[in-house]
Amino acid sequence: MRKMTVFQRFSRTFRDNPSLGKMLIVFTVSGGGLVAYSEAKADGGIHAVNPSEVDVKKKRVVVLGTGWAGTSFLKNLSNSSYDVQVISPRNFFAFTPLLPSVTCGTVEPRSIVEPIRNIVRKKNVDVHYWEAECFNIDAANKKVYCRSHLGGDVNSKEEIIVDYDYLVISVGARSNTFNIPGVAENCHFLKEIEDAQKIRRTIVDCFERASLPNLSDEERKKILHFVVVGGGPTGVEFAAELHDYVTEDLVKLYPKAKEAVKITLLEATDHILNMFDKRITAFAEEKFQRDGINLKTGAMVVNISDKEITTKEVKNGGAVSTMPYGMVVWSTGIGTRPVIMDFMKHIGQGNRRVLATDEWLRVEGCDSIYALGDCATINQRKVMEDIWAIFRKADKDNSGTLTVKEFQEVLSDICERYPQVGLYLKSRQMKSLVDLLKDSSGDAVKESIEVNLEEFKLALSQVDSQMKNLPATAQVAAQQGSYLADCFNRMEKCENNPEGPLRFRGEGRHRFRPFRYKHLGQFAPLGGEQTAAQLPGDWVSIGRSSQWLWYSVYASKLVSWRTRALVISDWGRRFIFGRDSSGI
Amino acid sequence: MRKMTVFQRFSRTFRDNPSLGKMLIVFTVSGGGLVAYSEAKADGGIHAVNPSEVDVKKKRVVVLGTGWAGTSFLKNLSNSSYDVQVISPRNFFAFTPLLPSVTCGTVEPRSIVEPIRNIVRKKNVDVHYWEAECFNIDAANKKVYCRSHLGGDVNSKEEIIVDYDYLVISVGARSNTFNIPGVAENCHFLKEIEDAQKIRRTIVDCFERASLPNLSDEERKKILHFVVVGGGPTGVEFAAELHDYVTEDLVKLYPKAKEAVKITLLEATDHILNMFDKRITAFAEEKFQRDGINLKTGAMVVNISDKEITTKEVKNGGAVSTMPYGMVVWSTGIGTRPVIMDFMKHIGQGNRRVLATDEWLRVEGCDSIYALGDCATINQRKVMEDIWAIFRKADKDNSGTLTVKEFQEVLSDICERYPQVGLYLKSRQMKSLVDLLKDSSGDAVKESIEVNLEEFKLALSQVDSQMKNLPATAQVAAQQGSYLADCFNRMEKCENNPEGPLRFRGEGRHRFRPFRYKHLGQFAPLGGEQTAAQLPGDWVSIGRSSQWLWYSVYASKLVSWRTRALVISDWGRRFIFGRDSSGI
Repeated sequence: MRKMTVFQRFSRTFRDNPSLGKMLIVFTVSGGGLVAYSEAKADGGIHAVNPSEVDVKKKRVVVLGTGWAGTSFLKNLSNSSYDVQVISPRNFFAFTPLLPSVTCGTVEPRSIVEPIRNIVRKKNVDVHYWEAECFNIDAANKKVYCRSHLGGDVNSKEEIIVDYDYLVISVGARSNTFNIPGVAENCHFLKEIEDAQKIRRTIVDCFERASLPNLSDEERKKILHFVVVGGGPTGVEFAAELHDYVTEDLVKLYPKAKEAVKITLLEATDHILNMFDKRITAFAEEKFQRDGINLKTGAMVVNISDKEITTKEVKNGGAVSTMPYGMVVWSTGIGTRPVIMDFMKHIGQGNRRVLATDEWLRVEGCDSIYALGDCATINQRKVMEDIWAIFRKADKDNSGTLTVKEFQEVLSDICERYPQVGLYLKSRQMKSLVDLLKDSSGDAVKESIEVNLEEFKLALSQVDSQMKNLPATAQVAAQQGSYLADCFNRMEKCENNPEGPLRFRGEGRHRFRPFRYKHLGQFAPLGGEQTAAQLPGDWVSIGRSSQWLWYSVYASKLVSWRTRALVISDWGRRFIFGRDSSGI
Repeated sequence: MRKMTVFQRFSRTFRDNPSLGKMLIVFTVSGGGLVAYSEAKADGGIHAVNPSEVDVKKKRVVVLGTGWAGTSFLKNLSNSSYDVQVISPRNFFAFTPLLPSVTCGTVEPRSIVEPIRNIVRKKNVDVHYWEAECFNIDAANKKVYCRSHLGGDVNSKEEIIVDYDYLVISVGARSNTFNIPGVAENCHFLKEIEDAQKIRRTIVDCFERASLPNLSDEERKKILHFVVVGGGPTGVEFAAELHDYVTEDLVKLYPKAKEAVKITLLEATDHILNMFDKRITAFAEEKFQRDGINLKTGAMVVNISDKEITTKEVKNGGAVSTMPYGMVVWSTGIGTRPVIMDFMKHIGQGNRRVLATDEWLRVEGCDSIYALGDCATINQRKVMEDIWAIFRKADKDNSGTLTVKEFQEVLSDICERYPQVGLYLKSRQMKSLVDLLKDSSGDAVKESIEVNLEEFKLALSQVDSQMKNLPATAQVAAQQGSYLADCFNRMEKCENNPEGPLRFRGEGRHRFRPFRYKHLGQFAPLGGEQTAAQLPGDWVSIGRSSQWLWYSVYASKLVSWRTRALVISDWGRRFIFGRDSSGI
């Protein structure tokens, strides 16, 4: 029970002093003090490690990708008994939450990136980086096949085969076009630095095109019609940034454009920002209306030609309408990368849409492969699947019934192994499983409770409804990376002293505590120095103060002092000189 | 004589107090107080000006290009009686002397550009900008034909035809490949912002490629062999910047590369920087040797394949040798753009290599077309061509001989119309033409000199040897731009009160003084915080102090306070954090 109490005390303090929450966020620089850890097998042998390059005693860890998850793993890895190979087509880490700012020049692309070699340079761990892209994962032989996209004439050797003892897959996701015709060809995406740079050039190009002589008003309006598809945080932030860019900077230089420019935000559901609190959604929708951003909800895109975008209303009999555009930015959701799809087929996950891992981030069916970040989801174990095993383990005297005492002994292990149990109790305002049993078994006196398997099953039957997939955010990926690094750091120690919960379907304990996500809040910048923030404990803040909170959090979360200084100076430049509109 | 005296006094002050020169340079923010002006005809009528957009009474000036010459013209134009159309494929002005710094990330590309719309925004002159490229100049009908390269579907209207009353051609030059096979396909150039960005990415790519596994030492050396062709200021500065980038920043992140990297500078003549003082050349060559930059002079490039560069020695029987490379930067010289070549054919200059203008920057043979900057040269009038007309004009009493009095009356006009006369006198340390006549006519008493045409011819026969083409530098282009703007500003005033020299082959005076270039000095940054500076009066400074002079001059010359602040903060960033090596 200690844990629940701590949580409640924390939660109360938080609610009573919202400013404390602010402080907490501001000073939480890294993914932050997780108290959950994981198990990992250590039976990987040494295969085909090149002895000339690497100490043969060291285990080789191959990390694919240099995004949030991979970089967080590398930053937190401190056990020098590994030989680490990082393979990624990008030799830098990009602070993606600032990508929408890059599209409009509020922040320069180079200010939000840090070379991965710089990040790992001063570590006590051997880390080598190769700029290449993995195109095949051979789990059976513990090899990954990579290809370098760098120019040059080393064609004969462009394929690189790397052996691993442990593989960490953190390749992220791709933008999802949902196979809608014309999306891939005609839309801009917003996942990579290059995407943001391209969008920036295209915005300026549109304004230049609209300034050419001999255009009709209609053509000018068409060129200056910017469409954003997807009302999630990225799409909303981009639309808001674009609106600021246009009204604060571009109209000064392109006075004629003022009347013609139009921004449309398309969203298939009824509201934008629907993962946020309703107050935030309402505020955002009102603000966009005031700003003149054309909000079209309940409309699905069905086709995009090079000139027009066709939408179909979700309700009202599915009325189809078409509008011409100058630029479309597609920001609807993510999909699985081809290399992961192939890998899933090989390991028997071919019928799934996303790569599944267990709660320790191990890919299901592959002992020495871990997957984190947007490329995987944690396939949480259901209580109902294990209910019999749990009952057997708890019922130490094999009496066929559980007493309160027996129950309390396994309680914390159950809550740790199946976090949905804790969430369920919290949502029902119960303090312990005993309450739950009491609740389901009527008015029996607490001391005398003794339940059989069927009653136990009934009591826990609703628990699994609390299970939710984690959102595909930078925050989750970063926490997973640092969690996994921590497991790797203490691999041997925890081998001897396992710290995880009881194995209900086996002997002994799990080596590590399972991964537990700690939500630190989320921002939705709405333009005009207004930001909505939703912090833990349903604390919602909207307005200028949240904008400053946003500035502080993002500045503090940046990966290095260099990027921190650059981003802050970029903000300063923007305040003083505005955003640049050169076509480069 | 007044003018010579001023010059000499200035020159003496300068030599006695070199620090004064420094101050002068530091505080000379713009192209600087020229005292020479030009004539321009004002007979252009109004053709096909679109009356809905433009006040029909205003004369339409079309400016092609937004480089040094065009932008300097626009910045200095202040007469609101013109309607100005600027047409250029780049919607910004780039401070090109800092391009070599951009190649290595010492300065960010965006810091050295300023949108042309921003530059002309607050002017009292109507200036419109169109992002398009001129592909045909029709001097007969006073029209230019342009094409927009902006994407989009306005194909049917991509061709834009613009009428002009005055045309200002300032499209600059292209890089000259001298038709050497493989240069266009395999080399990087260094003329545009995009070139510098590409070079930067390629440098980092080369280092990443060289870090891939399974490469032989030989292949690694080949990939890290950077070749710079051309020992002029740009090539030398790039080689020096690259050396600094490698030794100060890249070797920290790519420790294995240290031994393999090699920089080679190829120059066809015997020395690099041969337009500079010999002391500077010697210092630069020594410094490069110390730095380990491989200097290969007297070697012409004859072929460049995708892997190797073939050179031929100019002396020693033309020995041919071949070396593999990772990247080649081509920085040898400039050539005429195709649109100007076509234009030259149409106006009868087809047999020339460069477009010729007169001393007032008017294209020869076209009254209302001006050409400035790198796309044209001033075809200076020879004294010998006009010697008879000069004699006739001076000999007012038609006596067939010139007296001292007659002579002194036309003296300043001769010096102004034919600047080579002044240079000749200066080089011979003579104070006036009278000295020259004395010199050539022996010991005749000054007062009694009276020369006939033949004697006069003889005295001036060596004068034309002083004629030199102006260098293709930003300094010349900027001075020409501001000179021409000044002429346009005072067009009407000077129509009534011509201020130019006597017309020797006609009646009256020229409307404006001819363009006169004022050399303010030149820098050659040599890396490692060492710069060579050659200032007027043969004042040479080499070392750290010149580097600071360089910083101050370049900072002060930047086009706006925004770019000034950005470049200075970029320098600061570099000092603190080093240069970035992300592959973006």
